[in-house]
Amino acid sequence: MTAAKRPFDDIRALLAGMPGPDAAAAAAARARQAELTKPPGSLGRLEEIAVWLAGWQGKEKPRIDQPLMAVFAGNHGVVARGVSPYPQSVTQAMVANFSAGGAAINQICKTFDISLKVYELALDMPTADITRGEALDERSCAATMAFGMEALASKPDLLCLGEMGIGNTTVAAAIYHALWGGRAEDWVGRGTGVDDEGLKRKAEAVREAIELHRPHLSDPLEVLRRVGGREIAAMAGAILAARHQRTPVVLDGYVVCSAAAALHALEPRAIDHCLAGHVSAETAHREALRRLGLAPLLDLGMRLGEGTGAALAVAIIKAAIACHNGMATFAEAGVAGKEG
Amino acid sequence: MTAAKRPFDDIRALLAGMPGPDAAAAAAARARQAELTKPPGSLGRLEEIAVWLAGWQGKEKPRIDQPLMAVFAGNHGVVARGVSPYPQSVTQAMVANFSAGGAAINQICKTFDISLKVYELALDMPTADITRGEALDERSCAATMAFGMEALASKPDLLCLGEMGIGNTTVAAAIYHALWGGRAEDWVGRGTGVDDEGLKRKAEAVREAIELHRPHLSDPLEVLRRVGGREIAAMAGAILAARHQRTPVVLDGYVVCSAAAALHALEPRAIDHCLAGHVSAETAHREALRRLGLAPLLDLGMRLGEGTGAALAVAIIKAAIACHNGMATFAEAGVAGKEG
Repeated sequence: MTAAKRPFDDIRALLAGMPGPDAAAAAAARARQAELTKPPGSLGRLEEIAVWLAGWQGKEKPRIDQPLMAVFAGNHGVVARGVSPYPQSVTQAMVANFSAGGAAINQICKTFDISLKVYELALDMPTADITRGEALDERSCAATMAFGMEALASKPDLLCLGEMGIGNTTVAAAIYHALWGGRAEDWVGRGTGVDDEGLKRKAEAVREAIELHRPHLSDPLEVLRRVGGREIAAMAGAILAARHQRTPVVLDGYVVCSAAAALHALEPRAIDHCLAGHVSAETAHREALRRLGLAPLLDLGMRLGEGTGAALAVAIIKAAIACHNGMATFAEAGVAGKEG
Repeated sequence: MTAAKRPFDDIRALLAGMPGPDAAAAAAARARQAELTKPPGSLGRLEEIAVWLAGWQGKEKPRIDQPLMAVFAGNHGVVARGVSPYPQSVTQAMVANFSAGGAAINQICKTFDISLKVYELALDMPTADITRGEALDERSCAATMAFGMEALASKPDLLCLGEMGIGNTTVAAAIYHALWGGRAEDWVGRGTGVDDEGLKRKAEAVREAIELHRPHLSDPLEVLRRVGGREIAAMAGAILAARHQRTPVVLDGYVVCSAAAALHALEPRAIDHCLAGHVSAETAHREALRRLGLAPLLDLGMRLGEGTGAALAVAIIKAAIACHNGMATFAEAGVAGKEG
């Protein structure tokens, strides 16, 4: 008699069979960089980015013609604990703002020719308050991860992730705390701008949630469903699907990285195709990136979410590719190389 | 009897009569930022940039429709001291590469719709070796500064500065050392990638230059002409002319900032209209920015020059303006603000 199939089994199978980058394409890109009309290494991270993209896209000259910003929006029962200065209705209102083109992410995507898709995740049905119960049952969590994989359906050549969800820096903090320990206070921050009392309420909510679910938190997928939220589960699915298409991913801030953290805890190589677009002003984001082994491209004191940091990073990535593909070699330009 | 007019007199007059930013426009922009659909402050430096540009352009909603990258190229007699791994001929060859569209700066300017103009400064007539004599006489230095002011002739709404010149990190180091003291070793770096012996030769050249010119270095304009170079003098002129047109300026790396440093030493407010595009990998650039009171937008380990760091920063600045001008206000979007 075989055991009944569990909803997370498909996710675990995807994690077990992840492809790596194309080493030959990366090597060819690295060799090309050495021939371009500049001192070796002088473009710094732009050179690393070009080689990294070449590996994942499997091309000596990678391209970014169809970048996609996928923004996932969810609502959270933990808002009842007074963890945000904004009412829950703002999630839906901001989604409407995205549709109308009035949000920050709209302007940045337009500036850099990034397609924007917004995924609403049952906004009228907030997840359970994580201090009282499980945010999602296993079936819902797996289904939400599968839904997130749909972001890859249009075959973007670069996937950027963003999110919107009043209360979601609290659940992200709970995920980090569950995965990495420390104190609840180490992981909570001011989010959209909570005051000192609100910050205490956030830490208390995270502490209670972890106490409630502690017996089940050794499995990162259990962490994701018990103390996470729909947008975070969907982004974890999107990261995993991108990996199977070998599509490079640009992560945004503190909340997006919590989805990456759950995958990283399951399998550290699972986020090798991910780049940290920026480090946000949310206090613990820097430490989260350090634990994920990711060096952020930008550090602009931002803490808006929506994917804004990732979208800005696309500009740098586009410039890196433009240099890599468009620069003359020393031979083509007749420029003398380094002497001696 | 009046004293004969000296070549630097016009420069000193321009420094004495600099306009400031438009405080009303900056205040209006700041008020607008508070109404946009985001938590206050959550766009971090993007908000600061928008307000700063509003002040200098004198508009609540500043625009960047005609950004210009002005790249100044010069040659340096100090190259005879073995301070660069590349032959002096590379300056001319790279200028040809700029014209042919093959350099890094071409690709980045194309990516972000920045006009590119390259100014050759008597490349076949290198300045004197600063360890043996004065790089430029007063008349030539003043004329070169005036020439640099021509970069403003096309009335760009944002001026970016870049440079090319084999040996110019050595003269830039001499400028910093002359202005700010310390040891020659504190200011020299590997430039395009000089080895340990070359680095020692750079420090020795800087030390000798400062010893030779020491009696005359209390005047920053004397520093600029004696131990500087043509591209640096031209950029100092461009920064000063931009100020008189209230055109905001984006500085590039270590060499460009040495032009700003000379003006800053003459009058600290002289670079209030300048933004540091990035901090380069040239060791002393971070300290130079600290002394100039400038916080760099980007930190990508770059050390190419050409204006590449400044051009990348334009992407961030464009996004800042797009958010500032294009986002909906809370009232327009019907989004609830912060509670309580």
